Amino acid sequence: MHRIQGIALVVGTFAALSAQAQSWSPPPADKRCPSKWGATDERGAANYMNPANVLRASKLIKTGGVIELGHVLSSSMPFFGARRFEIHTKRTSPTLGTNKRMGNEEVVMTELGQVGTQFDMFAHQGIDGELYNCIKSDDIATRNGFTKLGIENIGMLFTRGVLIDVAAAKGVDMLPSGYEITVADLQQALERQGLRLERGDAVLIHSGWGKLWGVDNARYNSNTPGIGAPAGEWLAAREAMLFGADTFAVEVAPNPDKSLSLPVHQIALVINGIFLLENMKLDELAAKKVYEFAFAVQPLKIKGGTGSTVAPVAMY
Amino acid sequence: MHRIQGIALVVGTFAALSAQAQSWSPPPADKRCPSKWGATDERGAANYMNPANVLRASKLIKTGGVIELGHVLSSSMPFFGARRFEIHTKRTSPTLGTNKRMGNEEVVMTELGQVGTQFDMFAHQGIDGELYNCIKSDDIATRNGFTKLGIENIGMLFTRGVLIDVAAAKGVDMLPSGYEITVADLQQALERQGLRLERGDAVLIHSGWGKLWGVDNARYNSNTPGIGAPAGEWLAAREAMLFGADTFAVEVAPNPDKSLSLPVHQIALVINGIFLLENMKLDELAAKKVYEFAFAVQPLKIKGGTGSTVAPVAMY
Amino acid sequence: MHRIQGIALVVGTFAALSAQAQSWSPPPADKRCPSKWGATDERGAANYMNPANVLRASKLIKTGGVIELGHVLSSSMPFFGARRFEIHTKRTSPTLGTNKRMGNEEVVMTELGQVGTQFDMFAHQGIDGELYNCIKSDDIATRNGFTKLGIENIGMLFTRGVLIDVAAAKGVDMLPSGYEITVADLQQALERQGLRLERGDAVLIHSGWGKLWGVDNARYNSNTPGIGAPAGEWLAAREAMLFGADTFAVEVAPNPDKSLSLPVHQIALVINGIFLLENMKLDELAAKKVYEFAFAVQPLKIKGGTGSTVAPVAMY
Amino acid sequence: MHRIQGIALVVGTFAALSAQAQSWSPPPADKRCPSKWGATDERGAANYMNPANVLRASKLIKTGGVIELGHVLSSSMPFFGARRFEIHTKRTSPTLGTNKRMGNEEVVMTELGQVGTQFDMFAHQGIDGELYNCIKSDDIATRNGFTKLGIENIGMLFTRGVLIDVAAAKGVDMLPSGYEITVADLQQALERQGLRLERGDAVLIHSGWGKLWGVDNARYNSNTPGIGAPAGEWLAAREAMLFGADTFAVEVAPNPDKSLSLPVHQIALVINGIFLLENMKLDELAAKKVYEFAFAVQPLKIKGGTGSTVAPVAMY
Repeated sequence: MHRIQGIALVVGTFAALSAQAQSWSPPPADKRCPSKWGATDERGAANYMNPANVLRASKLIKTGGVIELGHVLSSSMPFFGARRFEIHTKRTSPTLGTNKRMGNEEVVMTELGQVGTQFDMFAHQGIDGELYNCIKSDDIATRNGFTKLGIENIGMLFTRGVLIDVAAAKGVDMLPSGYEITVADLQQALERQGLRLERGDAVLIHSGWGKLWGVDNARYNSNTPGIGAPAGEWLAAREAMLFGADTFAVEVAPNPDKSLSLPVHQIALVINGIFLLENMKLDELAAKKVYEFAFAVQPLKIKGGTGSTVAPVAMY
Repeated sequence: MHRIQGIALVVGTFAALSAQAQSWSPPPADKRCPSKWGATDERGAANYMNPANVLRASKLIKTGGVIELGHVLSSSMPFFGARRFEIHTKRTSPTLGTNKRMGNEEVVMTELGQVGTQFDMFAHQGIDGELYNCIKSDDIATRNGFTKLGIENIGMLFTRGVLIDVAAAKGVDMLPSGYEITVADLQQALERQGLRLERGDAVLIHSGWGKLWGVDNARYNSNTPGIGAPAGEWLAAREAMLFGADTFAVEVAPNPDKSLSLPVHQIALVINGIFLLENMKLDELAAKKVYEFAFAVQPLKIKGGTGSTVAPVAMY
Repeated sequence: MHRIQGIALVVGTFAALSAQAQSWSPPPADKRCPSKWGATDERGAANYMNPANVLRASKLIKTGGVIELGHVLSSSMPFFGARRFEIHTKRTSPTLGTNKRMGNEEVVMTELGQVGTQFDMFAHQGIDGELYNCIKSDDIATRNGFTKLGIENIGMLFTRGVLIDVAAAKGVDMLPSGYEITVADLQQALERQGLRLERGDAVLIHSGWGKLWGVDNARYNSNTPGIGAPAGEWLAAREAMLFGADTFAVEVAPNPDKSLSLPVHQIALVINGIFLLENMKLDELAAKKVYEFAFAVQPLKIKGGTGSTVAPVAMY
Repeated sequence: MHRIQGIALVVGTFAALSAQAQSWSPPPADKRCPSKWGATDERGAANYMNPANVLRASKLIKTGGVIELGHVLSSSMPFFGARRFEIHTKRTSPTLGTNKRMGNEEVVMTELGQVGTQFDMFAHQGIDGELYNCIKSDDIATRNGFTKLGIENIGMLFTRGVLIDVAAAKGVDMLPSGYEITVADLQQALERQGLRLERGDAVLIHSGWGKLWGVDNARYNSNTPGIGAPAGEWLAAREAMLFGADTFAVEVAPNPDKSLSLPVHQIALVINGIFLLENMKLDELAAKKVYEFAFAVQPLKIKGGTGSTVAPVAMY
């Protein structure tokens, strides 16, 4: 707690905090569709998954170390809006057989794709009624899932992961509330780490905000630091496979430009076919300075789902 | 469908079908507890996960090929008993911001650990009130999960995977209903494939039964072929990390010995701390004859959960 | 079962079965709005509930007899579409106190307003985006209920109930599949019973179709007999408070005019502010020839709900 | 709010607050079983429902006035423990037919029998493993409901209702936290109102605690005033059909005798077959001084359920 409060002292470092208010607007449909993978594509940046990419990632496993990047799922997590995660134990039946077998299970009720450490799929976000590849949401929505752009199309992503430790580059434990990470911030942090991005990378951004997870859930879900639209567009131009962060939105939220609502969600999911990975647990990775690694995530294959709770890892 | 019906013709190959009825009973508590990893252990065979094991697995990624081993999750899957998987789409709000962002999500209601391709954890099964390491189910059960032995203790398992193609060794597309796979069957199939098991392997058994998935769900969930108690004990003695199969129970069910109720569940989960991976999709792996590979599975970190729906893969 | 099969023999009675195909279309907005209770009304025919009406009903309780009109709610009911009713028992905690108290409860997952014997509220149905009183569905829909026209506005309805036994008037146990009940049918049945409708009545129509409930659920939910648009309009002109029946739709479904989708739902809920009560259990009422009675129904006060499962009764 | 704070001033009236700590223990099985309605009875005090009782109640409807006694159900209600009430709107499909019909519905996830204004059934509570009529909970519990003592056995209760306004008799708006209502309190309040109890009454106790509902939910669910074991036994001896109150437990909770856990639940449900009706809305009834009325409640017929959310009324 002491460290969290201490952050107020270093806000001075971030003098430009609100100076760079954006004026971003989504490109018109004919500038964003068809996607670079064609008009019928539903996999977006998952197309970067190919044998060469898998081999590239596997060669980064050098010590056999594994670091978990997913939080435990429970009803005490921070939840956005009215979302819930409820588990109801179904206790054992009377024992069965001469071997006296007994069994337990549970029923779970949750916005499965949108709680905890989570992977956002294309059905999740749109621009004025249109999703990735300009598919109309109304055309593919049913009461029980989406007929296109569902998370079942993705499967495991295994690729080079890069941690960009912006908090460390700024010399703080945690970026301040509402701080918008700029292109320069990303560049400086990468330079400090001696790394550059490659096509198909899983780009994970460490803000330190994850320290609030389970400690101050209300604050965790408000005024989160994160990348803004310019940084999102810069990362998209680097051809990342996904953007992840230790925050609920990956991007700065609310956006310093009050007229914008989560523009990086549109830049990633709708315009560039890049996935978002929210609420990651990045503290151990940052503490161990593991900046380059094999990254693996297995979204559940929920038919027609807008995302999936996940338990990703770094192997190095 | 033609191939499925053709199976009746080859049942003669399995003349010993019911001859080997078992008379197995679980060992007393003092023979099975404490576990080989100590009295307080909650991870069982996940203890085989260590840097050496990770490196062993990573070296099996040679071509960069990835094969998915998980089925799509939907309400039309075969379900055991009264289990369900229901997804209810929560459609977009009015658009937000000048960027006209819209969002979709869904609420899911399901026995999350016990539907679809699923990973069984120790809280799931017991012997007369006792779970792994002789922990009493009543002592750790709450209405909202288990205080010990929950799936959140596991994290990703990344290890050498071995497919034992028993169907191929028998020369059939699909083992017949209720066929009990014997130790000899496993040995012959391994010999045919030129492989031997090692400590910490993920052992996946191809029965061909998965052809029924989504085609004849009622039959899929009845009279499944699978390993019996002797084969389960033989594999446990090989120190496997997990047993998987393309069936709902991994083991033969119901057991040919009518007095027994799913004894391999007890042998694996309760006595030996080995995980079960049910309802796998193994057809592509078998068709491509990929018998040895890096196996990766990421169970969700459900606090106090008895298992997790998963989307595992083979990388080779 | 014998009686059900016997119905085929009497279909000849219904020779005009498909002759009266309709050509109905909803009135334009300016002909249906504002409602007769004003532009801001959300209670529709529940406005007939007033002290005089309550006294009128209470005077019909002459013998003290009570007949239940609701089916038992269970997972084996007929369900329309993908609806479900799932109950998951949450078993006792360890006993508490020196008095060793123990408790059980259950979690229920269901389309609570739209399963079993159910009461339809105005948020449930519309005409091209508009609900009762021309309120736009999009204007009042949230992800967690409707801000207007929710079932919490209604409370108990206690009024004169009238059973119109059309099956008896036709001399059959059960009306045939797809039979459209006409105005003449209603008039003849009322005349036979020596009754006439009054303003504010709960009008319950006995078709005999309820014999299929729990016996042949698939048939129950298909080709149901019921009133058509002309009979619906005739009843609306009688100023009924609600229309009920022993079928899933109250009205004939599918409509003999294949171009129409459940027009009586629009006539009742959207145009006239009259409630629908579906899947009633009317066999006992019909068998006892209780045609006039005090009718009571207590819809749950679900904030923003489109309806409520109910357990109504007749008292006579 | 002013009135709520004012209550502190009148606590002096309740000087005996903690003096009457109880030492109650449940009677042994042979003193409480079989119930007065026989060993196989599952309806308990619902057996008081008979034609004479219905007529008795109907004669109390004199003015046609109706007062609702149920709160609105929403996710912002006070919830006990981890219970929830979640409603997820399922928005309209594309319009259907030339009549452009559209429909909305919702899925609800809740402990349906144990949230909001609720009716407790016998499967809900026990004494050391035994429920009403000494039926063992383990013998009738399944994962999907109870095979006996479920709420589907009850149906509507329509009987004389009596409001005992203890708060008014004490001259306060709201009884103080943790106040145990005594037999003398009930007698004095009844005498003040000029009423006496009769067999089969629905006895509703007004404490004023309901003022906290939705205003201070945390306080509402803690240290609630209510009847203690002696008052519960006195009411049971009067042969009430049900006990209701404007509190979450009907009884004082926690009990002043710290060794006891909700003894009135056992006195009512387990020993005497009397129902409990919790979280009632009694303010209007008290304000209008309607002390005797026809009481009607329609618990949902949930197969094997431990209770039901309800929307009861008083008619007078």
